Order: sequence, then structure tokens, then C-alpha cells
Amino acid sequence: MSQILFLAAKEIIKRAVSTDPDDEDGSPDLTTPDDHLDDSDPVADEIFSSWALFILLFLLSSALWSSYFLQQRRIKAVHETVLSIFYGMIVGLMIRISPGHYIQDAVKFKSSYFFNILLPPIILNSGYELHQANFFRNLGSILTFAIPGTFISSLVLGLILFIWTALGLDGVKLEFVDALAVGATLSATDPVTILSIFNAYKVDPKLYTIIFGESLLNDAISIVMFETCQKFHGHQLKFSSFFEGIGLFLMTFTISTIIGILIGIFVALILKHSHIRRYPQIETSLVLLFAYEAYFFSNGAHMSGIVSLLFCGITLKHYAYYNMSRRTQIATKYIFQLLAQLSENFIFIYLGLSLFTEVELVFKPLLIIVTFISICVARWSAVFPLSRFLNFMYRARFKEFTSRSLSAPSLTNQSIPDEISHSYQMMIFWAGLRGAVGVALAMGIQGEAKWALLATVLVVVVLTVILFGGTTASMLEILGIKVGCVDEHDSDDEFDIEAPRLPISTPPTNHASGAFGNRRFGNFSNFNGYVDEARDTNSGVNMGSFKPQYPPQSTNSSSADLLQDDEALNPDDNIIPDPAPMVSEAAANNGGVLGAFLSAEEHARWFTRLDEEILKPVLLDNGLQKDKDNGRS
Amino acid sequence: MSQILFLAAKEIIKRAVSTDPDDEDGSPDLTTPDDHLDDSDPVADEIFSSWALFILLFLLSSALWSSYFLQQRRIKAVHETVLSIFYGMIVGLMIRISPGHYIQDAVKFKSSYFFNILLPPIILNSGYELHQANFFRNLGSILTFAIPGTFISSLVLGLILFIWTALGLDGVKLEFVDALAVGATLSATDPVTILSIFNAYKVDPKLYTIIFGESLLNDAISIVMFETCQKFHGHQLKFSSFFEGIGLFLMTFTISTIIGILIGIFVALILKHSHIRRYPQIETSLVLLFAYEAYFFSNGAHMSGIVSLLFCGITLKHYAYYNMSRRTQIATKYIFQLLAQLSENFIFIYLGLSLFTEVELVFKPLLIIVTFISICVARWSAVFPLSRFLNFMYRARFKEFTSRSLSAPSLTNQSIPDEISHSYQMMIFWAGLRGAVGVALAMGIQGEAKWALLATVLVVVVLTVILFGGTTASMLEILGIKVGCVDEHDSDDEFDIEAPRLPISTPPTNHASGAFGNRRFGNFSNFNGYVDEARDTNSGVNMGSFKPQYPPQSTNSSSADLLQDDEALNPDDNIIPDPAPMVSEAAANNGGVLGAFLSAEEHARWFTRLDEEILKPVLLDNGLQKDKDNGRS
Repeated sequence: MSQILFLAAKEIIKRAVSTDPDDEDGSPDLTTPDDHLDDSDPVADEIFSSWALFILLFLLSSALWSSYFLQQRRIKAVHETVLSIFYGMIVGLMIRISPGHYIQDAVKFKSSYFFNILLPPIILNSGYELHQANFFRNLGSILTFAIPGTFISSLVLGLILFIWTALGLDGVKLEFVDALAVGATLSATDPVTILSIFNAYKVDPKLYTIIFGESLLNDAISIVMFETCQKFHGHQLKFSSFFEGIGLFLMTFTISTIIGILIGIFVALILKHSHIRRYPQIETSLVLLFAYEAYFFSNGAHMSGIVSLLFCGITLKHYAYYNMSRRTQIATKYIFQLLAQLSENFIFIYLGLSLFTEVELVFKPLLIIVTFISICVARWSAVFPLSRFLNFMYRARFKEFTSRSLSAPSLTNQSIPDEISHSYQMMIFWAGLRGAVGVALAMGIQGEAKWALLATVLVVVVLTVILFGGTTASMLEILGIKVGCVDEHDSDDEFDIEAPRLPISTPPTNHASGAFGNRRFGNFSNFNGYVDEARDTNSGVNMGSFKPQYPPQSTNSSSADLLQDDEALNPDDNIIPDPAPMVSEAAANNGGVLGAFLSAEEHARWFTRLDEEILKPVLLDNGLQKDKDNGRS
Repeated sequence: MSQILFLAAKEIIKRAVSTDPDDEDGSPDLTTPDDHLDDSDPVADEIFSSWALFILLFLLSSALWSSYFLQQRRIKAVHETVLSIFYGMIVGLMIRISPGHYIQDAVKFKSSYFFNILLPPIILNSGYELHQANFFRNLGSILTFAIPGTFISSLVLGLILFIWTALGLDGVKLEFVDALAVGATLSATDPVTILSIFNAYKVDPKLYTIIFGESLLNDAISIVMFETCQKFHGHQLKFSSFFEGIGLFLMTFTISTIIGILIGIFVALILKHSHIRRYPQIETSLVLLFAYEAYFFSNGAHMSGIVSLLFCGITLKHYAYYNMSRRTQIATKYIFQLLAQLSENFIFIYLGLSLFTEVELVFKPLLIIVTFISICVARWSAVFPLSRFLNFMYRARFKEFTSRSLSAPSLTNQSIPDEISHSYQMMIFWAGLRGAVGVALAMGIQGEAKWALLATVLVVVVLTVILFGGTTASMLEILGIKVGCVDEHDSDDEFDIEAPRLPISTPPTNHASGAFGNRRFGNFSNFNGYVDEARDTNSGVNMGSFKPQYPPQSTNSSSADLLQDDEALNPDDNIIPDPAPMVSEAAANNGGVLGAFLSAEEHARWFTRLDEEILKPVLLDNGLQKDKDNGRS
């Protein structure tokens, strides 16, 4: 018996040591050489994919451990994403040096993995976590930076690259559309690093929201732009191509948004009209699955999955969330966050690894330097002129407001609201570090210059993350940006809320419970992590006082009640902060340039009414009474 | 402007319609034909993987929706796994019929996906959800069915197949080791369907535990057996091969178990000695990642990942669980369950799909019929003789016990405890339906007969799931098996427990709190979802009464206190149910055959002492005091 064990042990050690199939001396009596040559040998494949996955998971847990360590020691100078990249680089170098190419092949950055596995959780979580009130309040600035900003940045970067490559110093030749495609690739800013630093420092919510919103829409827009450019690769450019491109872009964006919103609404309706909340696990799975279906359906239909997923996430949080069981609410938030965090870390590790494991890469030092300088120039020429434009608009609006309104004389002494100060502009510029979306897009570059361009994009992305990401904390101090703002009180935390979920159906009868009704339906005050001081004093008292007083009795209310109730609530509506509502109303009455510019906020206001009066009564589950009748405790 | 939009719309519709790259008339002016021919075109690849993923997710959500529907309507005749297979088959047929092979390629069953993505969550969740008390109580039966049972089943099946193929009626030729490998493949029983039916019916915990434990270990054992057989493929069989095989098997099993346990203990120690519980998200991620690392490390080292993961899950639940933050406890349980449910449904959908999308399959009707009959014969010849053996052993033990013990004269009138009644034996036989592990293993079959064998395994697996799975509910009624047993009270449910987590460090001083201390450490009573009536009356009173009385005061206790305390608790020890402890003690004193047979339970008892007296004080976080000192509220 002991001899058997000895033989077996010898055999196992032999096999464990010979992990490389090229290693021919590994147990020749048991494995035929054919097994080694056959590339599709499932056993060997599985061994190597196991090692690759083990290495990736090990890196991921190291990164998370470092993240814990940094948070525990309150170290803010070094950020975890930078560490993730470094870990990836170190291990990538080790894999590159070590013999055999199997693990190297297995850990390669695959754009399909990125787009199908790593990206969706991040986008979904962004949509789900979006502070909707802040987002809509800053919609004008966000859209300005996101849409014209990305166009300007891509165009400037594309032009510089086209001119540089036309000089022929690097031996890289580019068509103009290809240069523009690279420009689009490198115009997708990455929210991850910046935002986690901002979260740690509790930076002013306005700045946070602008950068967050920009970088989110940014990704979507560069992807759509990139794909539009790719369509024209190898084709004669006509004058009409420009308009065709713009038309394609707008169409893609719109249809994708509609897909996302429709699927979100569909989920809300399903949750409302079924008893699936009795099975929270199925409910959680279905919410997650439908969000992913929005993404893949949109991608499959040649639309932008990112845009669909983003708006699906927003719609889910805005409607479906209130129809979910308490447990699903908690679980979806937690799981989405968890998946997003894992994906983010994974992406940065992947980036670091790719620098060494992508063997085909052609590094052109000059091109890299030129590109790095150009992205700074491109971002500069997007951020500063657009900020000036925005400030001009806000100032004009403010003047118009003060000249018409007599009710707010005290405001004239203060600075103009919504104006983007110079330090904020600088920070928005600084926040323009690039991320994995750029690299993943660059994988799709066609033509001869593919590998040189991919190498350039990869190095530039890693450089921006290390340089800009590593200095964001110092930059905040240098620019003197307000930090330590009111912390987000996440009222969905199961360890903060002990009170049971109040029934929604109860018709509010007095002012206080009216505000509560608004909170249940609109829930905007709920999302205001970063609450303006003024709003805080306005609504905070209401919110604080009625909560314990509100009796959890259930009377059956009809839709008509709710509608009336919501109309009665409108004077209380605090979704658009003062003075914006008054201003935009004035502007709308006035018409002209300001009216057009401010139309985004005007739409937001219009939408809010529609939302409160029609959509929410239709989409939200207005009453647990039904469930109680059906035997739910 | 409207013309631009019109052009763009036309273009988009054209592109959306032409999803098949072979479809050459799709927008010839914008895409070059080269794009179509290039197989590695990332854009086209992404489109098709998007459609494939969309289809799979859609199937998955349909399956979940059906599951909800079946539960809601209390329909138990049809099971969701059967529906999943049917959905898969229908969609697989549609994909097969429709033109183009891209989506067909993309939705193919890949064994690497199965082993790397789908299987781990199921195994991890099984380990994590294991009712440890029930498991250890029935360890003898479980191990008997799992180890010799699987051997007998594989051998019988292998022999029948070898003889059948030697007749040459099908034109399929098999070596003996290959026939044995197929036998191993088809000896892995699948727990999913049976156990969810058992859960729905609340079947007697003993039967549940035996089938659950068997099918879990079963998988691990057939995988190791299959791989051992594969090692001998194409080699001359010597007499020593048999012993070498057994040695390899035992070694693999042991080392894998050790890897799993060590990683579980490592996680427990990390959680104990760090403050990572302040960051529940990182904590949750790390627990998940380490479990997966156990799996991939073990696979990479040519060991059995399943065995490692299973024991890692058990160790995590036994030790690390009590060092986690409350939120991580809830989150890990919920997430593991969720992932397992998704994986399970996915696997069955995949099986259904594969029947039509695997184009290389060679269906041999005679071979399929013979194999199906043989698996019944094989299971029959494993279950019934082993049950008889077990009953013989239990009866002998019981006789010995009653002849020695004078304290339990009333027991002689009752039936013999632990004996497996005929209806239970029949149910264990019936529960032997095969699952995805078999199919995934069959993918690794080598040699000429590969596709015929794979087709056979696939059809047989689907047949067993439909036939046995579909009739389990009726079978329970026919056999008159006790259903509607005490429901599992999952006290980790955040909606059931409102009381805060009590500090562990408080030294128990009286009998009642002693039992409580035992509960905190051992937590066996906690896991007893299915509590025997006898035990319920024994321990239930203690458990119920002291909980509110126990004051949550914290005094700092040393390890020595805990050790003493645990020793004092031993008379109260209710982990091994009566009369087994007394019996096994008697048997151990007596020695001989019975002693050897009962050694598993003897080990369990020995382990329990070690566990309570040394391992738990070392591994568990004995005191939140430390945290309080460090500023944790």
C-alpha cells in the first residue's frame, strides 16, 4: 500500500512540475506526445486557463487587499488603480520572461471579454448609482462637456495625429478617418480613479457630478464616434459623409437610449404586475439579466450597448427600484457595486499586464510622446473654451434673472450660481485621464498601423492614469477645491434603516405627509447625497420630522387620488434647485438663445411633471394592499 | 437635417437587418467584403457574441420566470430544470434551422466555460450551504454511497459498454479504459433537480442529506476517476496500473481536500487578524476570490478543483463565516446562492441547446438505449447492495449497543436508527439522474469514438433529467416518503433577525449560557434545518429560553477560559446524535470490523473535540472587544 502511495506521489509531483506541455520529459509513460501537439487538447487547455485565472484572481485579491490597506492607513497619495496597473505590469513582465507562451496567451487582453464581461457592470452601476437630482441640475454643463467636448477633443487629436504621421518620422501612415478614430479612442475619459479619489475626499458635489456625468456619456459618445469612423475606413470621403456620420451618430444615440429606457420600464411593469417580489432571488436575477439583455440586444442591433445600459440603469433605479422587494433593493445595489469594483480593478490589472503580454505591439516612442502631448492639448481646447461658453451663458441667464425678478435681491451680492470657477475648470481638465474603454476600442483599429496605434494608446492610457491619477489628490489641494462636503447618507443601507418599508398606497393628507409622498415617489431627496446647504434646511426638517410620526396605516387609494395628490404636491417640488426653475421659466418665456441653451434644463423640468403625474402612477407599485389581500404578510 | 436622419435611418435599418456576415447585400458601400471574410474581425465577432449572449440571457430569464410561475402556482409536477432543457432544445433547434453558423458557433457548449464559470458557483454554494451536523451524522452512509458506490457504478457501466461495443453492432470500438472513463462520466449524479424538489416538499432531512452528500462527493470522485482513466488512454494496461490508479485517486483526493481546507483556514485567519470587516465590499470580494483561487490553484496543480472548492466552502462556513461582518455574512450567502441558481439554470439550458448546436455529434440509437439501461443497472447494483451492507452494519452496531447498554431499554421496541428503509433505497436509486458534470467530462473523451460517446452521454443525461427528474414528485408520493418536515429556519436572514450580533468573547458562566457558547462556536444547532423530533425536544428548550435572557455584556476572556469552558461543555455536546456517540464509543472500545466501519463517525467525533478545543479558539475572532478598542462602534 505504501508503495502504491509512493508511486502515485512520484507521478503527481512529476505532473505538477511539468505544467508546460512543451516539456517533453513529463511522464512520457503516461501521456502520449500527441497530446502535447494537439492545441485543442481540453485537459491541457484547462490546466493553462486555470493557471491564468488563478494568476488574475490572485492579482485581483492583491489589489483589493492593497485597497483595504490604503484605506485603513488613510493613504491617499497612491491610488489603488495605480497599484493595480503596477501589479499587472510586474506579473506581466514575469510571464513574459518565463518560458512557454500558454499562460501568456491565456491572460491576453481580449476586447470581447472587456466589452461582454468587464464593462457592463461598471456602466450599469454608474446608471444605478447616479445622483439623479444632481445630474439633472447640472445637465447643461454635463451635456456641453460630453458632446461638443468629445467632438472637439477627437477632432483636435485626430488632426494633430494626422499631421504628425503625414510628416513620416515614425513610418506610420494614417488616413484621416483613422486618425479621427484614434482621436475618438483617446477622448473617452475614465471615471474610476478620479471618482474614487473624489469620494474619499468628499469633493464638492457639483464638480463631482459634472466630471462623473461627463466621463459616463463620454464613453458612450466616443464609442459611437469610433464606430462611425470605422464605417468610413477605406472609403472615399465625400462632403456628405460628414452629415451622414452626424446623422448616424445621433440616430445610434437616440435609439440606444430608447432601448434602454423601454427595457427599464418593462422591468418596472413586470415587477409591478407580478408577485415576483416574494422570491427575491429570482427577482434580483431577473433585474440583472434584463439589464444585461438591454446591453447585448443593443450591441447586437448595431446600437450602443453602453448608452442603452446606462439609461436602463437610470430607469431601473428611477422606477423599477420602488417596485422591488426590500431585499432585492439592497441586493441589487450591493451586487452591482461589487461587480463594478471587481471589474474596475480587473481592468487596470489587465492594462498593466497587456503592456508585456501583447507580443505584437510596436512601440514608437516619438509617436507616444506626441500623442501624450496632443491629448493634453485636445482636452485643454475642449475644457477651457467650453467652460468659458458655459460661464457666459450662466452669467447672461443670471443677469436676465436678476433684472426681472424682484424677489431675490440678496443674491446679487453672491457669486453667480452654476458658474464654473477656474479651479474647477483646471480640475475638469486634470480629470481627463483615459481608461480601458480607449484600449478596448483601439483593439478594433483596422489597417497596417494597428499594432503601433494600439501600443501608443496603451502606453498613453497607462501614463495618464499614473500621472494624472497619481496627482489628483495633490491637485485638489493646490487648487484649493472644497473638500469634506456632506457625506452621502445612503438610506438604503440595511444597517441604517431599521424601520420596515412603509406602504406606498397611503394617501398623504397633510403637508408633512405630502412631502413624504413626494419622497416615496420622486425619491430625489433620497438621492441627494450631496445636499446643498440651502436645500438641506428647506427639506431636511420636513424629512426628519414626519418620518416617525407617519402612521403606517393602509387605505386603498385609487390612481385618481394619487394624481390629485401629486398635483397638490407640485408647489413643494424641489427637484430643480432655485434659482434655476425661475430662471429657466423666465428664459422659456423670453425665448431666443438662452431659451434654446437652457432647453435641457427646461426639458428636465417638463419631464419631472410628466414623471410625477403620469409615469410614476402608472409604473410604480402603488400599494402593497394587493399583496396583503393575496396573503403576503 | 431631416434628409440626414432619413439617410442614417436607412443605413441603420440596412445594417440591423443584415446581421449575417455572409449576407453580401448588406451595405456594400460602407463595409468592405474583406470584413466579411476575416474571421477575426472584432466588430463582427462582437455582434455575434452579443446575439449569442442575448439569446442565452433571454433563455435564462425565461427559465427564471417559469420557475417563479411554477412556484407561484404551486405546480410541482413539472420542474424548472426540465423546462430549461426544453427551452434550450427549442432555441437550439431554431438556431440549427436558421441560416449562418456564427450564432451556432457562439452558443456551443464549451467545457472550459463549464468548468471555469458555471461549475464553481454551484460547488461553492453546496459547500457553504451544507448542513454540517446532518452531514457528519450521516457521514458513513454518504461516504459508502459516494466512494464504493461510484466505483461499482462506473465498473458495471464500463463493463456493459465494453462488452456491447465489442459485439460491434454499432461500429463503435472502445478500449477498456475508455469504457471505464465513460462509466465514470455517467456515474456523476446531479444534485440540482432532485434537491430543489426535495426542498419544495421538505423531505426528511436524513434522505435529503444522504442524496445531497452523495451527489456532491460523487461529482468529485467521478472527475478524479475519469481523469485517472484518461491517463491510461492508449497505454498497455498492466496489473500494477490498477493499484497505481487507486493510489493516484487517493492522493488527488487527499491533497485537494487539504488545499481547500488550508485556503479556508487562511481566509479565516486573515479575517480574524485584520480590520477588513470595516469594508464589507472588499471583504465579500476577497472571500469570493479566495474560494475561486482554491479552485483554480487546485485545477492548475493537476488536483481536483471541485474537491478543493467544496472543502474550502465548508471550511469558510465553519470558521471564516464567524469572523465576517454581518453584511458580508448575508452578502456571501445571498450571492453564492444567486450565482448557483443562475449557473444551474444556465447549465440545463446549455444541455438542451447542445443537442442541436453540436453539429459533430454522431447519434447511435442502439448505443443510447443500451447506455440508458446500463446506467439504471449500474446504479441499481451500487445502491441496493450497499444499502444492505449499511443496514447490516447499523443493525450489528445497534445489537451490540443494546446488549451492552442498560440505559435505553425503551429503544428496543423502536426500529433501528440510521437504517435505510426500502423506500429510501428506492428514492436514492431514483435520485441518480445525471447532470452537466457528465457532459462536461464527456467533452474530454479522446479517440475515434469521441463524438458517438458524447452524443450518447448528452442524450442519456437529458433523458434521465426528464424521466427521473420529472417523476420524482410522484415517486415521493408512491413510496410514501415523509414530507413536510420542519422547515429550515434560516436565522441569517436579515429580515428575521433584528437583534444585533452578540459579542462572542463573553465567557459563559452557567449551563444555559454554556449551551449558548457552544452554539456560537459550533453553530451546529443553527444549521439544523431539518431537526429530528428527538433532538428538537432535547435542545430546543435550551436554545429557545436563554436567548433573550443572555446579557450582551463583554468581558475580555482568554483562550484558556474558552478551552476550559469548552471542556465543560462536552457533556452537552449534541453534534453526534444519540445513540450514535455511545454506540461508536462502544464499537471503538470493542475494535474489530464494526470499529473500522464506524471509524468515519469516530473521526467526526474526534474532530469535533479538536475543533472545539483548539481550532475554533485559534481561528475564530474571539472578541469584538479589540475592534471596540480600535474605535469601531
